[in-house]
Amino acid sequence: MRRFATEKVKKLILGSFLSTRSPAPSSQLCSSSAAAAASAMGPTQSPPVTFDSINPKVLKLLLYTCTLLLFIIQVLKCEYAVRGEIVSHAQRLQQELQTKPGSRPFDEILYCNIGNPQSLGQQPITFFREVLALCDHPSILDKSETHALFSADAIARAWQILDLIPGRAGGAYSHSQGIKGLRDAIAAGIAARDGFPANADDIFLTDGASPAVHMMMQLLIRSEKDGILCPIPQYPLYSASIALHGGSLVPYYLNEATGWGLEVSEVKKQLEDARSKGIAVRAIAVINPGNPTGQVLAEENQREIVEFCKKEGLVLLADEVYQENIYVDNKKFNSFKKIARSMGYGEKDISLVSFQSVSKGYHGECGKRGGYMEVTGFSADVREQIYKVASVNLCSNISGQILASLVMNPPKVGDESYESFIAEKNGILSSLARRAKALEDAFNSLEGVTCNKAEGAMYLFPRLHLPQKAIEAAKAANVAPDAFYARRLLDATGIVVVPGSGFGQVPGTWHFRCTILPQEDKIPAIISRLKAFHESFMEEFHD
Amino acid sequence: MRRFATEKVKKLILGSFLSTRSPAPSSQLCSSSAAAAASAMGPTQSPPVTFDSINPKVLKLLLYTCTLLLFIIQVLKCEYAVRGEIVSHAQRLQQELQTKPGSRPFDEILYCNIGNPQSLGQQPITFFREVLALCDHPSILDKSETHALFSADAIARAWQILDLIPGRAGGAYSHSQGIKGLRDAIAAGIAARDGFPANADDIFLTDGASPAVHMMMQLLIRSEKDGILCPIPQYPLYSASIALHGGSLVPYYLNEATGWGLEVSEVKKQLEDARSKGIAVRAIAVINPGNPTGQVLAEENQREIVEFCKKEGLVLLADEVYQENIYVDNKKFNSFKKIARSMGYGEKDISLVSFQSVSKGYHGECGKRGGYMEVTGFSADVREQIYKVASVNLCSNISGQILASLVMNPPKVGDESYESFIAEKNGILSSLARRAKALEDAFNSLEGVTCNKAEGAMYLFPRLHLPQKAIEAAKAANVAPDAFYARRLLDATGIVVVPGSGFGQVPGTWHFRCTILPQEDKIPAIISRLKAFHESFMEEFHD
Repeated sequence: MRRFATEKVKKLILGSFLSTRSPAPSSQLCSSSAAAAASAMGPTQSPPVTFDSINPKVLKLLLYTCTLLLFIIQVLKCEYAVRGEIVSHAQRLQQELQTKPGSRPFDEILYCNIGNPQSLGQQPITFFREVLALCDHPSILDKSETHALFSADAIARAWQILDLIPGRAGGAYSHSQGIKGLRDAIAAGIAARDGFPANADDIFLTDGASPAVHMMMQLLIRSEKDGILCPIPQYPLYSASIALHGGSLVPYYLNEATGWGLEVSEVKKQLEDARSKGIAVRAIAVINPGNPTGQVLAEENQREIVEFCKKEGLVLLADEVYQENIYVDNKKFNSFKKIARSMGYGEKDISLVSFQSVSKGYHGECGKRGGYMEVTGFSADVREQIYKVASVNLCSNISGQILASLVMNPPKVGDESYESFIAEKNGILSSLARRAKALEDAFNSLEGVTCNKAEGAMYLFPRLHLPQKAIEAAKAANVAPDAFYARRLLDATGIVVVPGSGFGQVPGTWHFRCTILPQEDKIPAIISRLKAFHESFMEEFHD
Repeated sequence: MRRFATEKVKKLILGSFLSTRSPAPSSQLCSSSAAAAASAMGPTQSPPVTFDSINPKVLKLLLYTCTLLLFIIQVLKCEYAVRGEIVSHAQRLQQELQTKPGSRPFDEILYCNIGNPQSLGQQPITFFREVLALCDHPSILDKSETHALFSADAIARAWQILDLIPGRAGGAYSHSQGIKGLRDAIAAGIAARDGFPANADDIFLTDGASPAVHMMMQLLIRSEKDGILCPIPQYPLYSASIALHGGSLVPYYLNEATGWGLEVSEVKKQLEDARSKGIAVRAIAVINPGNPTGQVLAEENQREIVEFCKKEGLVLLADEVYQENIYVDNKKFNSFKKIARSMGYGEKDISLVSFQSVSKGYHGECGKRGGYMEVTGFSADVREQIYKVASVNLCSNISGQILASLVMNPPKVGDESYESFIAEKNGILSSLARRAKALEDAFNSLEGVTCNKAEGAMYLFPRLHLPQKAIEAAKAANVAPDAFYARRLLDATGIVVVPGSGFGQVPGTWHFRCTILPQEDKIPAIISRLKAFHESFMEEFHD
């Protein structure tokens, strides 16, 4: 892919310079234009132009056309593994199961490829949905029957929220950062979580965390010479967003041997290496709890990272969407802002962005598309630029905004819903912890598989030590060995996992990501299907 | 701005080429980097480098760095008039009114700057909100009290919709194009509207129409040499999106004298002019009904446009978000797809995108962020690219998806809600028609103001023939004359309109956009405030 892109870039740059004199037909969309441009410059038409022979006087024209680099980066490099080829195949199998039941050795597809809890049967948190329904249809709020259907605190909360919305107009565009009163509630929730103040003006409500990440990448990346440090393995949102905005991903490897440890010495090495290549490294993305790796950073480690960012002048992009998902007693979530403030670092010392989402946590409201970023340590003019970018899409959806405020301000002790809310929340989180442990143990019991603990988040990322014959069979099939394994697993069991190559991994190692989200009563069957498949796979390819 | 950008480009390109040897500190965000780069190259550090003296051998380095052009375009050119300076000033005034009531000659701010009906008191359509609330909280669907609060067909529809969602999981990420069953419903609605078939695979559900427009621009624009034909005046989403994606806006002027007529001869002239400058014109945006201009295209005119696109190989981007908003008897809405199909043109003949939104129409559900685009006449691989781009944000919000399906499939004759639904719908549309007429007449009664009819959409775009003294006063205040007028209007009356310069206009003419959305009982007061202000303004600046 990389080499292919470079070849295309060369051809396209030379080609488009020439084509400014005789423009190409304009009806081709860009996705086919790489091929079209390449074919339009086939051997018979290719003029003997080389980089060295170009007259400097044409520089200006080149300046216009070389932004084609961006096009190449955008369309060819944009890969999104969690919805990639394996998933398309799973969807075909699902259709096949519907039209021809019994045609496969399984009767359902189990989507363990994506952190989408409610698609696998997790029920929404009742209080949250009550408030959303009431805000959607406020005219029932003062009817007597409503009290039979909704809890008193949900009704009270809906009134409170409506009063925060100018004109109680939940169907109107809001301020582009989100409704001010909801941002106040979120800021108060952050302050209560961290023990340090938070400010509604720093909150940007977004349709999930993804658009927030894109917004920051849009602002940070000016050219391919701007780099963003990203963990490897990483959730592919980062690689996709950096590619879409034409920047360079600067990888730092997590250490599998120390439970996917984030080692600052490794980050420093990669930073220096990138700088020596002329890359201006502008930010570091840290995913905590980790995705796809499930580790939870220790407080001491977080302090090192903050110190490093301060020293190197890096923006710290803290992906904290799994802050509620912690499954071990010896770790807890600390926001990077809390860590920085507890070290005495304020607004002037470090630029920090924290991403949060309603899609994760114990609530898993992926379909609501709610989330926010808290941006601190930026100048007023940078914040104005963020606001400008946010304005172009007017505002994020109001239900998602409301839900984000609920997540950061759930029922409190004494509220009518509190007991049932806590029971739902703890029920989900403790079940997730049991599922994580059961799957981790199962993976570790398999020949040639090792798996770190899922301390948090929603995933396990087991390593496959594959027999040479399997690697060769994958090569013959022209796919990566972990993709080969994942495809075989899907065909045999209906279980959809994402090959490690979709997240990045140390070259020559093979993994896959598997969510811990299938409902608990299905886990034993999944484990036995996994084991049976794995044994037969290893037998087939035994060295 | 333009000249400023050119200067910065030069400095930045030269600067960044040099900085590849000694990278600049990476902690500055791009918005401040223009200034930073400029200052880092102050007189003492500036080397005597000019374009002509650059050795061709450094071209490769330049190729990497000159994508800075995109940065410049992105951040400096991204302007969004409907949320611009006038609106910020209005928000300040609103705060002032809250803290110091009586401090201004008005007691409320009337936001006529943006098509945001519910912010001005329009009530949502009951049936739509009933269904949304029930889908948010399905556990009340089978309770007896629910029948006292919700109409029977809303309950039935909620069940139907839940059955379309895999696992009834409305809180799960959906397919990145949107839930298949909802797309089926939308396709059926399009087919019923047009009398020609529509296909769910062609529908991409999005968070409002804006992200759909961005997606198409991302795919169409490869470099500044790619142009998109846009009407002038135009809704600034188009100019902002083209700027953000680094393309060139190729303007075609609507003819104010013929009621904002779209003349194909003008489009052709501008297309040829752009091509002669080496711009590859890839698409034409047509807004019908017009925004900010309110005209509704005649069928014959639409046929000419389709013919023109076919002949010139242009993608037709049809902004049809105001399809329900028609206020005159002699015009009706025809989708461009219907026109093309009725001319015998099929998939192979013309590439067509139709944008639709839940924010407009009679429902005006802006805060729900729902919408879709229907893409026809594209190859499978282009559609795959669109899907890829859509996948990066996973999916649009499910409430917005549901609402888009309701808008395209509202209650039918015989349904319990039908009578009340039609009464609500017709009540809003006929009131909007009366408001449009009253405001149009009022504008035309003012000295030096002429105003075309609002045949559709939600806006009037009156022309101001300002006295020379007013133009000079504006010049002295360093603002455009229409911005000067709009600011004065706001300070005197609390009415917020958008200066014509935010939409583009024939140079030397001045306009403003005013929505027709204030509630009908407020229109007489608005008109008298407008008249009093205008008379005093004209008196103050009389030649």
